[in-house]
Formats: sequence, C-alpha cells, structure tokens
Amino acid sequence: MTGGFAMQDDLHGMLSPRSIALIGIPRGFKTGKVFLLGLLDQGFDGPIYLVHPTAAEIDGMMAYPRLLKVPGDVDMVIVMSPRETILDVLGECAEKKVKAVIIYTSGFSELGDDTGRTDEAKMRQIAMKAGFRILGPNCMGIYSPVSKIAPFPGMPKTKGDICFLSQSGSMVNFLVNVCARNSLFFRYVISYGNSCDVDLPELLERVSRDDETKVVCSYCEGIKNPGELIVALKKLKARKPLIMWKVGLTEAGQRAAASHTGSLTGEARLWKSIFRQFGILDVYDIEEMLDLIMAFYHLGPRGEGRVVIVSGPGGPAVSAADAVEKNGLRMAILEEETISRLKGLLPPTGTSPSNPVDVGLGAAFELRLYLDTLDIIIDDPGIDTIIMLGGGASSDMSMEYVQGLIAAKEKSDKHMIAIAYPGFVQIEQEDLLKLLLEHGIPVYATPERALKAYARMLAFYRFQAAG
Amino acid sequence: MTGGFAMQDDLHGMLSPRSIALIGIPRGFKTGKVFLLGLLDQGFDGPIYLVHPTAAEIDGMMAYPRLLKVPGDVDMVIVMSPRETILDVLGECAEKKVKAVIIYTSGFSELGDDTGRTDEAKMRQIAMKAGFRILGPNCMGIYSPVSKIAPFPGMPKTKGDICFLSQSGSMVNFLVNVCARNSLFFRYVISYGNSCDVDLPELLERVSRDDETKVVCSYCEGIKNPGELIVALKKLKARKPLIMWKVGLTEAGQRAAASHTGSLTGEARLWKSIFRQFGILDVYDIEEMLDLIMAFYHLGPRGEGRVVIVSGPGGPAVSAADAVEKNGLRMAILEEETISRLKGLLPPTGTSPSNPVDVGLGAAFELRLYLDTLDIIIDDPGIDTIIMLGGGASSDMSMEYVQGLIAAKEKSDKHMIAIAYPGFVQIEQEDLLKLLLEHGIPVYATPERALKAYARMLAFYRFQAAG
Repeated sequence: MTGGFAMQDDLHGMLSPRSIALIGIPRGFKTGKVFLLGLLDQGFDGPIYLVHPTAAEIDGMMAYPRLLKVPGDVDMVIVMSPRETILDVLGECAEKKVKAVIIYTSGFSELGDDTGRTDEAKMRQIAMKAGFRILGPNCMGIYSPVSKIAPFPGMPKTKGDICFLSQSGSMVNFLVNVCARNSLFFRYVISYGNSCDVDLPELLERVSRDDETKVVCSYCEGIKNPGELIVALKKLKARKPLIMWKVGLTEAGQRAAASHTGSLTGEARLWKSIFRQFGILDVYDIEEMLDLIMAFYHLGPRGEGRVVIVSGPGGPAVSAADAVEKNGLRMAILEEETISRLKGLLPPTGTSPSNPVDVGLGAAFELRLYLDTLDIIIDDPGIDTIIMLGGGASSDMSMEYVQGLIAAKEKSDKHMIAIAYPGFVQIEQEDLLKLLLEHGIPVYATPERALKAYARMLAFYRFQAAG
Repeated sequence: MTGGFAMQDDLHGMLSPRSIALIGIPRGFKTGKVFLLGLLDQGFDGPIYLVHPTAAEIDGMMAYPRLLKVPGDVDMVIVMSPRETILDVLGECAEKKVKAVIIYTSGFSELGDDTGRTDEAKMRQIAMKAGFRILGPNCMGIYSPVSKIAPFPGMPKTKGDICFLSQSGSMVNFLVNVCARNSLFFRYVISYGNSCDVDLPELLERVSRDDETKVVCSYCEGIKNPGELIVALKKLKARKPLIMWKVGLTEAGQRAAASHTGSLTGEARLWKSIFRQFGILDVYDIEEMLDLIMAFYHLGPRGEGRVVIVSGPGGPAVSAADAVEKNGLRMAILEEETISRLKGLLPPTGTSPSNPVDVGLGAAFELRLYLDTLDIIIDDPGIDTIIMLGGGASSDMSMEYVQGLIAAKEKSDKHMIAIAYPGFVQIEQEDLLKLLLEHGIPVYATPERALKAYARMLAFYRFQAAG
C-alpha cells in the first residue's frame, strides 16, 4: 500500500490520476483558471488536456473543442463549463471511459429547487452506468502533493500525513496554507461540495485504510446517509483521530449550509452523541482545528499528562497553571532532587523552583537559566510534558534559546511544547518558529491553547485504548 | 482634567513625574537596564538621575553614590537595588521628599516567609509617614506615552485611551506590544506586583475618574482588601468597561500566584459572582483580552446586534452564521429590496443573495461583487453590523478591496468588522490590516472570535444601560 491507495480502489482514478482533462477552462484571469495553474504549479506528471468550445489555444497550450477529440486516455476530468452543459459533458466522459470527474460548476441542489436535485440524480446515474465516480458538483476537487495535483496554485509541494475531507472548497486553501506556515503537511485533501456521488462516509473509509495517513480532519455541512457514516466512523475509531468541524448546528447555520452545498445538516443533539460515541474531536473554528492538528502531528499518546511549565515571564505561567487544571491535566510534582538542583541554579528572588518553574525575567539576558533548568527538568521521571515559555532578549539570543530547546528535545523522550507568546517579539519570529516546528516541537501562541489541545489529544488516546 | 489626572491626586507623582532617579541601575547588559532604556526611548522630558554605590558613570551618564547626593528635586524613584538595601533606600526617599517609589526588587511576600511580609509592612509605614506612595515591590512600574515613561525600551510613543492595571510586569510588555500591532494604544499601564501600598482598588478608582480613559483592562492574581474592590467596582461600573483576566482560580493557579506576587487569589465562586454583579468582562487568556479591547476600542453600543455576513468563501460564512446564533446575536433579515438588488448583482450560481451573503469565489477576481454588495447592504436599515470576509486574488486587488471597505465605512454609521481569515494570504498582510485598523475597522482572524467579542461588548452596554 506504499505511495497511495490500492490499485483496485474505486477512488484510485480520482486520487492518483495519470492524465487530466480540464473542460471549460477560461481564457482570461478568471476563477476557473486556478485549476490549470494548480496542476502546472504542482508539476503534475501526466498529460493535461484543455477543452474549450471555441479557443484553439489557451495560455500557449493547445485546446480541444470536445473531450472526445482529446487524443490520449483521460483518467480524470475537471469540469467548470456552464451548468446546462454538465449532463452532456458527463455523457462524453462515459464515452471516453474516464475514471473520475470533478465538477466545479455550481447551481444544483444548493439552489433549493427540484431541478438541481433532479440533475444531481441524473449525474449519479450516468456515472454509475459508465463506471466512473463524481466529486461535487460545486467543489474544488483534490489537492495532493503525493499525486502532484492541486486546485489552486501556490499550494505546498511537501508531502505530509494529514488528510482533510472538506465540503467547502475555500477551506481547503485556507487550512492547507495555515498548516504549511506551521510546517504541517498533507497527503490528500478532498473538497467534495454537494456530494452527489462520493460523500464523506466513503472518503472516511478510504483514509482509515490508508496506512500513511496519521490524522484525519473534516469540515462537514451535512451528510446524505447517516447509516453509512456510522459504519465508517466505527472503522476509523480504532485507527486514527478524526478532527471534525461540523457546521450548521444552529438554525442560522443550517440555512446557510443549505444554500452553500444543499446540505441537510442534521440535529445538533444527534451530532453531539456521535462525537461522544466515536471519540471525534469536534472543533468550532479553524484555529481550534489547527491547534489539534499540531498536537496530533507532533505529540503522541505517551505519558499521563503530568505537565511542567518553565517560564521567564511570571504572569503567563500563573495562567498556564490554571489552564493545566482546567483541562484536566496535572501539574507535575517535582522530585526533591529536581527542586534542590533548581534552587542551586536560580537566583533566590524573582524566581520559583517549584512548578511552574519561574526562571525570572533575567533569564532573557542569561539564557543558561532557561537551558540549565531544562536539563535539570529532563532528568525528572515524574514529568511527561514540558511547556517552555521564554525567549532571549535579542534575536540572536532567541536563536540560541531555540537551539537549546532542540538539543534538549533530541536527548529526551518527554514531550516539549514551545510557546511563542503574543507580544514577546524576540521569540515570535518566523525563522525561529520554523526551526522548532521542523524539529518536532509544536509551537502555540499561548499556553492556554497548547494545554487545551494537548489535553484533548490525550483524552482521544485514552478513549481509543479503552476500545 | 485634560492631559492627566488632577494635580491634587495622590498618585500624580507616580503617573506624571517631573524628575526620576534610578537606584541600583546595573552597568552591563542586565535586566535592570531596561528601566533606563525605556525612559530614554520614550524621550522623558525631565531630568533622569542614576544612583550607583560605586560607579561614577554608567553608559556615559553621571551616577551619584546615594539618592541624597542628587542635586535637584526628585518626584519618582525607581529602585532595583538588592533586597537588603530597600528599607534604607526608602529612608533616603523620605528624607529627599520624593512623591513616589517604584520597587522592582523582588524577594518579599512572594517567598512565602514572615520576613517578606514584615518588610512590606515596614515599607508601607515609611511611605505613609513620609507621605509618598509605593508601587510594588516586585513590579515593573509604569508605561505611559502621555507622561513619556516606560519600563521597557521599544514601547509605542502613540497615545491611546486604554488603561491596563497588571499585577504581572511581563504582561505589560506583551499586551502593549500585541495591541500596538493592532493599532490599539494606551494611556496608562501600571504594573503593581506585590502591591504593598498601591493596590488594584485604588487604581481602578483613579482610572474610573479619568475622562480620557475609555477601556480598562486588568490582569489580577489577588487583592488584599475585597471591601475596597467592591467600592471601586461600583464606581467604575456605570462609567467604563472593565476587561479582567483573573488568574489563580484553580488550586494550581493559586499556588503559582502565591509564589509569583505573594497573592491570596480568592475563591473562584466568589469572583464569578463579582464578575456578574458588576458586568465585568472576564477573560482567560491574552488573545481573548485583545479581542475584547478591539471591540470596545472600535465599536460601540449602537444597534441591536443584527449582523449580516458578506463572504466570498462559502465555508467560513456557514460557520459564521452558527457563531451569530451561538453568541446570542441575530442574523439580520434583509429587506425584499436588498435581496432583489443583490440578485441583480450576483451571478445566479455559486452565490447566495440572502444572509450570509455569499458573493462567490469569483469575487476575488471581480472586486465589484464585494464592493457593490457592500453598497447595497449599507442601505438596508435592518442591519447593525457588517462582517466582511473577503479579499482580492492578488495583493493589489486586496488593497483595492481594503480601500473599498474604508470608503464604505466612511459613508455609513453601521459597524463594520473585517476578517483576515487564516490562510487567506492575500488579505493577511500587515500593511492592509494596519490600514483597516487605522480607519476604525476592527480586524479579527476569524468570524467566530469577532462575533464572540462583539456579542460580549453589546451585552456589557445593555448591562450598563439597565443600571
């Protein structure tokens, strides 16, 4: 199963196409152009065919008047031609024996009229009869650095082990960008829109079977078949975490989801019981999703949640101690020896040798106070996770601090989390944060956010272990 | 009362000193040096005297061996000399007839022993007898661009109308920095540490009487006199909002606060009833505090919380609609005429002319879809607040989008909030966000954060109006 899904997989042509045709690609700088730019930007290996009713050439590439005029085999078709052409286009796809069709074109069930729903049923029938699969309509399709495909230019080429299944197309772009900024990378990102054929349950089953997927995320407005969802969630449950942003849980959100992807969102109470039953990590915004992805990507089930906070600034450390308890974690009780070694290291005033370990504001000028504290802390067997809230008095000193954290992390199997506190300008620098993230040290803006995400991650693994 | 507190004010010498002496200023690049650097950086108008037991000169400035050797009058003294010198120094302060003393030196009640508490009582006695006031010990003192004083270099020189009363010194630096980045500026920021003399209740009374203070924030570990706090809160209640980050509300936090500023934190239940009784906006981290400051700074009590969401990306708009309802706000019901004008403007598919108004992904390429929508929306009397979630397809187009928002804001008295969505890279640019903020348009990363802060702000004004 290395390098992709199994060959016999029904979704293989969609996830790992060997050739792609774009139908209805615009000539100017218009929305649809992103599909071509995305493929070129990723350096897609196979042939890309452009189909346009009148243009013989677009951006210097040859264009064909119809799909059937394309000379070679076509695995996947991306359709952005007008609504009224879709059924004819699908007829051609059947004749051309394509494997998968992504329909960007919108104006179907999300309009709330019968025509849209009927058309989607017809699409599904054509696809079933011909043996190809449809993603959409009203979707952005697939981003995968593994398959070198993307629906937007400028998406990362770095491969990761996160999968994101999103009913919203724009969310694909946003989550991938914000994750990349935090050195978190993806394997498959699938925007499925109105889901007239491929829907969330099937996608969940596929990613649960994929050994190289570590974390699954979902932005979901509604699903068509709750029974299938339950089956898929049962399979996923024991295998990997699912971070789910289920919107439309209020009346206002339900109306918005209906006109966005034609979704029936379902009852909030029902969804809440599903979250509980299957250990789903439900989130309410993109920042909370990012925080959890960060925890699952870099940390793991190790330990019992005994946290030590090491901080130069005193205020944030007090609040962090509150957050430890509020999130059901435990402040690690330091061993006598640890405390006595810390007392030997730290100045007698403006510091505290118990947990939270306050190394004093002076540590920004005298980094060994941070780094020697870290060395002492690492030896204490009663600690699972170290929260480091600090930085140097200058950029250079902050770089030394960061390198010290990385060196300590490398000789210990304790979890380490770095805080780049808002307004602590010497540590909030992109190159420093990148260095930490690249060395497997997650970085959060505040200890409150870090501890919440860490606690939820641990709770998931406990849930999973309990079967 | 323009330009500062009244002259007869007991705290006047502390908030608006005409001359300052620094006692125990270090020679090298050490922590204490920040006090001198801060004053020089702000361009403090009056004389600055350095006092050092042995050095005749520090950084090219003359140093005096004792405070009593300083030739001129001294309004305020900042002390960073060792713990064992403090009582003698205060004796000299009495003899020199200073008005205020800020004690940075730590090692008193926060150590949890009797000596620390006894020493603080002695400090208070010396000050009372001599008629000067003490801030601290174990504090960073005062930042005020109005008085041109600061305990750190690099703090903004721009004056604003926020006051921040913080038991933590480092929090002063962090909150001021992170606010400055969001064009939010301060009037007085007071770090009061162990509060052996001046404590939160007195500071709250002072800022409640200051006409030019619009928003009051507090980071609080504990207070010494609950009765005085209640009196101060009663006075403040009708006048201005208080955003309070009360830490130490868990056992772990209580222990941490005791060893940080020697504070008795008080019972969580009691504090919660105080928050309710006085309409205090309690927050649990620096980001939540920033979000609320932003709302109070730029928005106001106008309107009934009828929100319209205008978005190009569909996904975040659905979640935003959820957030409107979850926070007790209302999705504005658009007038027939508004809807019909929107139908005339927007493409028939991939958009939605009701609230949330989905202008479609194409709007990033065709900005008039955003800006003409805004013009239509502005005319609808049933809307109080417009949430704009968008941006252009390029930096230049995003600049045009931002200028469109500013132009619309200028011809309307509706609230406008801009969302710089995480990962929407074209709008997340510092210069664009700065432009919005400088024109009174608050910017939030997510609609969820914006709506929560906006709803809490409205709730405060309703509470205030109800008396």
